Amino acid sequence: MQMALALALKGRGRTLPNPMVGAVVVRDGRVVGRGWHDFYGGPHAEVNALDDAGEAARGATLYVTLEPCNHTGQTPPCTRRILAAGVKAVVVAARDPNPGVTGSGNAWLRQRGVTVKTGVCAAQAVRLNEAFNHFIRTRRPFVTLKCAATLDGRMATRTGDSKWVTGEASRRHVHDLRHEAAAIMVGINTVRIDDPSLTTRLPDGGGIDPTRIILDTHLSIAPTAKVLRQASALPTIVVTGPDTQTASRDAVVAVGGQLMAAPLRAGRIDLIWLMEKLGAMGLASLLIEGGSQVAGAALRAGIVDKLCLFYAPRLLAGDDGIPICGGPGPALMRDSRAVRIEAVHRFGEDLMVEAYPAGGPAAPLTD
Amino acid sequence: MQMALALALKGRGRTLPNPMVGAVVVRDGRVVGRGWHDFYGGPHAEVNALDDAGEAARGATLYVTLEPCNHTGQTPPCTRRILAAGVKAVVVAARDPNPGVTGSGNAWLRQRGVTVKTGVCAAQAVRLNEAFNHFIRTRRPFVTLKCAATLDGRMATRTGDSKWVTGEASRRHVHDLRHEAAAIMVGINTVRIDDPSLTTRLPDGGGIDPTRIILDTHLSIAPTAKVLRQASALPTIVVTGPDTQTASRDAVVAVGGQLMAAPLRAGRIDLIWLMEKLGAMGLASLLIEGGSQVAGAALRAGIVDKLCLFYAPRLLAGDDGIPICGGPGPALMRDSRAVRIEAVHRFGEDLMVEAYPAGGPAAPLTD
Repeated sequence: MQMALALALKGRGRTLPNPMVGAVVVRDGRVVGRGWHDFYGGPHAEVNALDDAGEAARGATLYVTLEPCNHTGQTPPCTRRILAAGVKAVVVAARDPNPGVTGSGNAWLRQRGVTVKTGVCAAQAVRLNEAFNHFIRTRRPFVTLKCAATLDGRMATRTGDSKWVTGEASRRHVHDLRHEAAAIMVGINTVRIDDPSLTTRLPDGGGIDPTRIILDTHLSIAPTAKVLRQASALPTIVVTGPDTQTASRDAVVAVGGQLMAAPLRAGRIDLIWLMEKLGAMGLASLLIEGGSQVAGAALRAGIVDKLCLFYAPRLLAGDDGIPICGGPGPALMRDSRAVRIEAVHRFGEDLMVEAYPAGGPAAPLTD
Repeated sequence: MQMALALALKGRGRTLPNPMVGAVVVRDGRVVGRGWHDFYGGPHAEVNALDDAGEAARGATLYVTLEPCNHTGQTPPCTRRILAAGVKAVVVAARDPNPGVTGSGNAWLRQRGVTVKTGVCAAQAVRLNEAFNHFIRTRRPFVTLKCAATLDGRMATRTGDSKWVTGEASRRHVHDLRHEAAAIMVGINTVRIDDPSLTTRLPDGGGIDPTRIILDTHLSIAPTAKVLRQASALPTIVVTGPDTQTASRDAVVAVGGQLMAAPLRAGRIDLIWLMEKLGAMGLASLLIEGGSQVAGAALRAGIVDKLCLFYAPRLLAGDDGIPICGGPGPALMRDSRAVRIEAVHRFGEDLMVEAYPAGGPAAPLTD
């Protein structure tokens, strides 16, 4: 199963809104087939592994990180193919998280005499597809909030200087996060100050750009902003409030940007509405890269599913820098946002704290 | 040597301004004597270990975490005692960091035919006495800055509520830090808001209170403040600017507080002057427990030798809470304070980042 989990990762960033899945065919203690779901719309892991095994699959055991599908989607059901290949036993890590169909693939196979064992390395398999699992249940994107700050919680100095808070290894990892994310979101302040391109730049190339989302209530983005002028397969969407000027709208559209008018909540774009909307557009995951106002608003709106907090080994030693979170905080500490710290990673000299809102994510699903 | 290092720790918090030292006597592969420096002014580790070994020390090897002293201080030189006991070989972890005498104990023993090996577990032994090593070289206290904040860098909400940022395990560890520190320092705002007692409360009792130092430029402390009304062996010193009112001074002295008038630098107490002064008073280590203004000022003054940054698993999600560091920060990120992250600890659900200013502490001293 560990091999299957490692194979699944080969599809990272290319399978959404489908899950990453890996599969291994074992006969007489020998691996005779390997496969993974490589890209959205492509063949499933089971099919690739059974193709790889060929006739050797007959009487073999199939290890697969996710319950085989039992319905026709972009491809025919994997359960039929498993049965047809003569597989004797299937070992499944995580059940299908889709509420309507969970368990049905396993049940279908069992009814036809195939031994099915589930729950092997389930926690790992569920974690692997945390974005997919969330999306399939809620139809809202899995939202990761990424911040980079000093140890005293400052993303930049009072002049806006943030070069560099964190080191190269951290910044490289951010491109991995972008590659994995279906969409990336920043506020207009970040566009104004940093003029980022928000594309994915992996060291060996081949990164997939996310859809870029700019929160810009009053539509003040400059048509010269880099984010509007990317040669990128996916669009840049400028989300505004309901009242914007025609000339500004025309200027954004003229350089290839897309516009989305959103309702406001307390004078700011309603992030809960926006998440529903992005989900309906099929965007299964969203990386929020700041700045301060967007991070604070996202946390207060309760839309954040995961936190990746990078800390540089430095302290600004002053209260006039740009904080991690902007906006009004609660009066009492007990009303602050509680999280569960999953892990602390080192990227070069930096720390990265990986955390989830207390209570989430969902526990592994097993039979 | 690991046993000797473990024995040394038994003196934690009681030896300053002397170092913690442990010693083990080994003959024919068997431990025949153990000792440690238990309290300031008491017998040295070597003497205790040789007493424990008795006649078995003849022809034995002595493992000691610090180079034996070769001068008469509160007690006679250990080198004489080692020679008189008939010890054949001495294994030393770290050399005496005192610039005037380093290496002299080792040399004296070698001249008299005792084999001396140094540098065994040196880094560990140097680390063990980082406060002492610093004090003996600089005659200024080793300054540890302790902060407790949310992951977005807030020590309290806008109303000053900080109960509780961090959990019980972290708060317990703070009492260990207090027990180890010769003195503890906070600003008048912390006294006003939290009214702390700043005593050491270890779970099994027996903690040693630090000398308490309150920075109070304009002498506004209430005579009813808990910190002035402790039944504690060590004093509370209120450090003020040069101009204070007689009535206020009398009120502090009347409840048992001590006063120290300090020069100002940019309207605030000159912390560099104060460190020299505390050093001259024989205070070898100082724990700064905040708040925000004191932490920022201490970092900017460059007096901080070590950082213990506790992070609670929560985010305030607003910019209106009390930040880790108050006061004016630099305009450019490259002028912020760089640190070296030594370790990340977990205390219950909290994180504690242990860091040193980049460049320090000093490297191990070996022959």
